[in-house]
Amino acid sequence: MENSMTLAELASRISARIEGPGDAVVTGIAPIDEAGEGQVSFIAQGKYNAAAKVSKASGLISKAVIPGASATFLIAANPYYAYACAVELFHPPFRPHPGISDKADVHPTAVIGAGATVSAFVSIGEGATVGAGTILFPGVVVGRNVRIGADCRIYPKTVIYDDVTVGDRVILHAGSILGSDGFGFAPTPTGYKKIPQVGTVEIGDDVEIGANSTIDRAALGVTRIGRGTKIDNLVQVGHNVIIGTDTVIAAQAGISGSCKVGNRVMIGGQAGLAGHLEIDDGIMLGAKCGVPDSLKASTSKVWSGIPVMPHGTWLRMVTLLPKLPELFRRVSHLEKDTLSKGDE
Amino acid sequence: MENSMTLAELASRISARIEGPGDAVVTGIAPIDEAGEGQVSFIAQGKYNAAAKVSKASGLISKAVIPGASATFLIAANPYYAYACAVELFHPPFRPHPGISDKADVHPTAVIGAGATVSAFVSIGEGATVGAGTILFPGVVVGRNVRIGADCRIYPKTVIYDDVTVGDRVILHAGSILGSDGFGFAPTPTGYKKIPQVGTVEIGDDVEIGANSTIDRAALGVTRIGRGTKIDNLVQVGHNVIIGTDTVIAAQAGISGSCKVGNRVMIGGQAGLAGHLEIDDGIMLGAKCGVPDSLKASTSKVWSGIPVMPHGTWLRMVTLLPKLPELFRRVSHLEKDTLSKGDE
Amino acid sequence: MENSMTLAELASRISARIEGPGDAVVTGIAPIDEAGEGQVSFIAQGKYNAAAKVSKASGLISKAVIPGASATFLIAANPYYAYACAVELFHPPFRPHPGISDKADVHPTAVIGAGATVSAFVSIGEGATVGAGTILFPGVVVGRNVRIGADCRIYPKTVIYDDVTVGDRVILHAGSILGSDGFGFAPTPTGYKKIPQVGTVEIGDDVEIGANSTIDRAALGVTRIGRGTKIDNLVQVGHNVIIGTDTVIAAQAGISGSCKVGNRVMIGGQAGLAGHLEIDDGIMLGAKCGVPDSLKASTSKVWSGIPVMPHGTWLRMVTLLPKLPELFRRVSHLEKDTLSKGDE
Repeated sequence: MENSMTLAELASRISARIEGPGDAVVTGIAPIDEAGEGQVSFIAQGKYNAAAKVSKASGLISKAVIPGASATFLIAANPYYAYACAVELFHPPFRPHPGISDKADVHPTAVIGAGATVSAFVSIGEGATVGAGTILFPGVVVGRNVRIGADCRIYPKTVIYDDVTVGDRVILHAGSILGSDGFGFAPTPTGYKKIPQVGTVEIGDDVEIGANSTIDRAALGVTRIGRGTKIDNLVQVGHNVIIGTDTVIAAQAGISGSCKVGNRVMIGGQAGLAGHLEIDDGIMLGAKCGVPDSLKASTSKVWSGIPVMPHGTWLRMVTLLPKLPELFRRVSHLEKDTLSKGDE
Repeated sequence: MENSMTLAELASRISARIEGPGDAVVTGIAPIDEAGEGQVSFIAQGKYNAAAKVSKASGLISKAVIPGASATFLIAANPYYAYACAVELFHPPFRPHPGISDKADVHPTAVIGAGATVSAFVSIGEGATVGAGTILFPGVVVGRNVRIGADCRIYPKTVIYDDVTVGDRVILHAGSILGSDGFGFAPTPTGYKKIPQVGTVEIGDDVEIGANSTIDRAALGVTRIGRGTKIDNLVQVGHNVIIGTDTVIAAQAGISGSCKVGNRVMIGGQAGLAGHLEIDDGIMLGAKCGVPDSLKASTSKVWSGIPVMPHGTWLRMVTLLPKLPELFRRVSHLEKDTLSKGDE
Repeated sequence: MENSMTLAELASRISARIEGPGDAVVTGIAPIDEAGEGQVSFIAQGKYNAAAKVSKASGLISKAVIPGASATFLIAANPYYAYACAVELFHPPFRPHPGISDKADVHPTAVIGAGATVSAFVSIGEGATVGAGTILFPGVVVGRNVRIGADCRIYPKTVIYDDVTVGDRVILHAGSILGSDGFGFAPTPTGYKKIPQVGTVEIGDDVEIGANSTIDRAALGVTRIGRGTKIDNLVQVGHNVIIGTDTVIAAQAGISGSCKVGNRVMIGGQAGLAGHLEIDDGIMLGAKCGVPDSLKASTSKVWSGIPVMPHGTWLRMVTLLPKLPELFRRVSHLEKDTLSKGDE
């Protein structure tokens, strides 16, 4: 799958400015401390400058030339972005042959777009549509009246329940579940009565959802994941949740029903949100935090702890927690002192 | 899929008493602030009274008439239950055609009940039985000697390992796993020796299990989920756990091996229980809590925190956590004061 | 599936020394309080001595004879290990017939070893190899150029992405995902740009991975799980993580990208590790803990809390947390006393 090109050609294709000779041929990408001749590496931050000086890489993607390094530099304003483009050039994503496997089960009313791939053991329900160029890997299940956009990659064993809508260029990793029933039950004296979950799920363009994550359908209405939002593995999104654009949610986080999460929010791993909250645009939630109430960016942009508090407050608090036994002893001493003084 | 009926007919079918004209035709359900003419909505609690007064819904399911609202009222002692019944009327669950797909793989010794559906790419093992009216959606795997009751809905990609028993009217969401091996290993000087997990799993009637949840089989004996218990997505239930009836477990909670969880227990999202605990009937465990010991309802009905403490104690404690730095400063001041006074 | 043998024969086959008559025939294993005549049970620790005395089991696997018990003893230096061997004898794991199902989809270039089983609806990609005696249960998806060793058990719906390597005698439980993309994106002014994840995953010999766990492929290079490591259900392992040998990770734990976890580490349920950490050999991490920094065994072998602190410190701290309101009151009293004394 690897390609080869000169450094000059690479620079041109990733829109980088070249500093140094451009005629060496490169064939791949490697980490800074492993890259050898014919390979390109990447300097994200100042801390790798020392590594750059001893690197044997032929080319280095960087924000600026690092004096003392022998490699040719490929200078980019956003080197991480340029690096991503370079990886894509050397490792274009695999595309299976287009067409419908004779081992798939496609309802006759389903519409499959031009150049789409429907692999073995894929099941597609009545009235579903699959956009042009979209790849359904083996074992994907697409429910009735599902609409999937163009140029998506739907990895094996993904399940999309009836009536769900998926945008263009969406990536769904293996085992992800879209449109399972929200968790809603009416208590009765003889047990719980299920509230039928008759809403749906809408996934925006350019969304990526991680392996074995679950996105519940709305009770009524819609659960929505906004354009460009990226969700990691094993994340739970409850019914009627609305998530904005370009939000990032790390692994094992959980968002309870009816939350409204803004744009460009960052949610740490294993974080948990109670139901019906509003989280302002741009807020960052620390790993493992627990959010019981809505959060305003004007109060704090970064939040941590269970329950959450502004991150700076949390940092000061947790450094003191291990000293709590000492504090109790100090207060006991003070009480004894006060008592003995009172006795004087 | 939507049906239509008069308000009078709807009231009769959900056992509600009608207050106002009953001849308007309604065709669906919507949230209180979105419902329009020809739709029905629902008032659960007093806080929606204002919304009720401006709602354009033709009918409102409620516990009592709300003065000032223009809609016809459908009065029910348990309005949430009546609402669930109304949703069911307007959105009866989809039933695929009964019968066995010629793209399924059913062992000749397996017994499939009348009216059951076995979809494409379903695999059913030797000696398994599937009850009447049960639906196996595409890609379900049913192991050897599994017994599944009547009128179940088993969503795509659910895996039921050998020898597991599932009751009647059970709902298993996509990707749920029943009967995977419990986590048991004997340490040896050269590594871990697997303890074969040779028990099984029993799922009671009317249980619902969420997407991608995992229920381990017992080491010996049985892991049991009692009648009517509802489990959300991505929940882990360890080997030999016994859960009572009508218990509710929110998403991403984890219950370690050999726990005994009572009836009508409520477990919050991302909560975790250590192994071998007993949790009394009716106990409520807060989201993200960590339970290291057995809990008695006589000590507290509601528990929160890591490790858990009675919820009231926890509430008082967490409001003080952000003030811990201030407390350390106050104690330092007192010490200085005491010291200087001692010097006097 | 159960076998029968005399106690003497059982003792010989599990390398135990027999104390008492060896001619009784036993047919199975049961817990100490349920075992009856013809069954064998197991005493792990002293606390079950009382149960042993009233047990009706014909044989007891134990470290030493328990005076007062009527059963024949099977004495082993590592009774838990001997017990595991006995369970295996009575319940040898089920082996489906070897061969390739005509309902599987195997690429013509894939190589399937002698005695391997490829079940219905299994998909095997171009250039993949499956070792001798390995069982692929229904619905497993094996990507292109995947290498799977000998004598593995790959349970239903497991997904192995392209280029992943799996050792010998590996057990992968249902729904586990190996090689999904790591979570890496370059921020740009118009949203996130995906960093292609072009590394792979290597799973060592004798590893077991639980149901619905997810192991991400490396960005570049490799995500590696060392020989003999055991991972429970719903665990997340991020890209470029390196885990040593004989490490144990309980359910719902999460390990962020680029962590290096040592050998014989034990990670509790729902624990979480931030990215790029190093965890020394032999360290134990408590359930639900949060690890923000690398941990040295020389500082503490056991860690708990969010963020983690040495376990002993944490234990002392958490017993005081519920007394925090009282401490605030005590300090207020002291301040009043000091103030009033100052007024004297």
